[in-house]
Amino acid sequence: MGKTSGVTAAVVLIGDEVLSGRTQDKNLIQIAQFLAPLGINVVECRTIPDDAGVIADTVNALRARTDYVFTTGGIGPTHDDITADSIAAAFGVPIDVRADALEVIEHWYARTQTPLTESRKRMARIPEGASLIINPVTGAPGFQIGNVFVMAGVPSITRGMLEDVAHRLHGGAVTRSRSVKADNLREGDIAIPLGEMQSRYPQVSIGSYPYFLEVQDGEVKRGTHLVARATDERVLDAVIREIADLVAGLGFAGRIDPQD
Amino acid sequence: MGKTSGVTAAVVLIGDEVLSGRTQDKNLIQIAQFLAPLGINVVECRTIPDDAGVIADTVNALRARTDYVFTTGGIGPTHDDITADSIAAAFGVPIDVRADALEVIEHWYARTQTPLTESRKRMARIPEGASLIINPVTGAPGFQIGNVFVMAGVPSITRGMLEDVAHRLHGGAVTRSRSVKADNLREGDIAIPLGEMQSRYPQVSIGSYPYFLEVQDGEVKRGTHLVARATDERVLDAVIREIADLVAGLGFAGRIDPQD
Repeated sequence: MGKTSGVTAAVVLIGDEVLSGRTQDKNLIQIAQFLAPLGINVVECRTIPDDAGVIADTVNALRARTDYVFTTGGIGPTHDDITADSIAAAFGVPIDVRADALEVIEHWYARTQTPLTESRKRMARIPEGASLIINPVTGAPGFQIGNVFVMAGVPSITRGMLEDVAHRLHGGAVTRSRSVKADNLREGDIAIPLGEMQSRYPQVSIGSYPYFLEVQDGEVKRGTHLVARATDERVLDAVIREIADLVAGLGFAGRIDPQD
Repeated sequence: MGKTSGVTAAVVLIGDEVLSGRTQDKNLIQIAQFLAPLGINVVECRTIPDDAGVIADTVNALRARTDYVFTTGGIGPTHDDITADSIAAAFGVPIDVRADALEVIEHWYARTQTPLTESRKRMARIPEGASLIINPVTGAPGFQIGNVFVMAGVPSITRGMLEDVAHRLHGGAVTRSRSVKADNLREGDIAIPLGEMQSRYPQVSIGSYPYFLEVQDGEVKRGTHLVARATDERVLDAVIREIADLVAGLGFAGRIDPQD
């Protein structure tokens, strides 16, 4: 039922290329998977265009109601990279090329023998009061301002920046998950007893996700993943065993996923 | 710069499993790619939890400011499938098992010799005033109410439902895109002349997207995709040729993607 509690985060994916269907986003999943073991739950994700007003409004709405906001995209050197300026506007602070960021970029480009063009200097535009986030992949830093972390959109760079973000976060109780994969089981076969279990375990979030895998030549293998999520591992283990027994009692082969 | 105009759409992905990082969403990209040739541009996507209040608030916010809203997820037979009831609440209309939807489901399950359990009947709960959306994959219908289209979350079922959605939509001018793939080019090499081009062609949206491909053994191939988007194909063709010439003039090999 997903009543999310504890420490919360929002993710903002900035980029026309994701909204247009040109690019498959990979950042939500990697940020969510990075935050989960820290005890931080992503409660909303918004994908928005490269539009200064929308970026500022979105970040202001989300930073007021979640503990952390993570943005990706729009911090490169080109004209469509307007995230840093939009975030400065959202916080009502000035923005300009900052000496500390310029030094990082100069040092990086000197090392890689890349000319430091005017446009590359633009990547040193950082809002007043923000702290830099190290970019171990391509040099130009991200930044943190308040509870907002502004990162690059290329997934490998985002991933690199998260390493310099983790130590700044204060997590909560870690939500863990266990799952049973039940081949051939359809949701409708188990819905009523599963709903009854959910009522008995309000501290556990029980979800049911059907799958349809095309095996070959149009032949489809179907089944249902049954997933339980909770912070208390003992309760979680009891619930997932009960779910496995329920699946077996209905005459299906259910397997507790050893990966979880 | 992505000033989106014309006919607009919002996508709402409903599901704890996407926010938790357990499942990689595939619906935004397929919905955006389905709508683009119809002349409908996705201007925002929100991924939200299985929470009745959040679902209703999100749909109400988005349906007021975009032409169409598409939701996916949460219309199955289990306790965590609360989308239909939440949408009814958003529109302030009653919801119950509806005869037309029940007939569709009964017919489907009779054909596939599946028992019609009480929980499967739950999938016939449709808000008053909504029209059904055919589900050619698993039977249980989606529905349209006002400008909101409520679809299943399993991508193959979502895709099937879109076939019964297309004829209900009134599109606008189709936004087309062309792109140049320039190996080894970095954004900073081209940022200034590209920004200058953007200023000269305000009716075209010019974007720049760096890529980093790991070829093998940690060796990385990098470059930049330069993408132009516009409704006027003649202008678009002129702009993309100008971009290709610009890339060549900087000493890089740029190739207009024949796929676009």
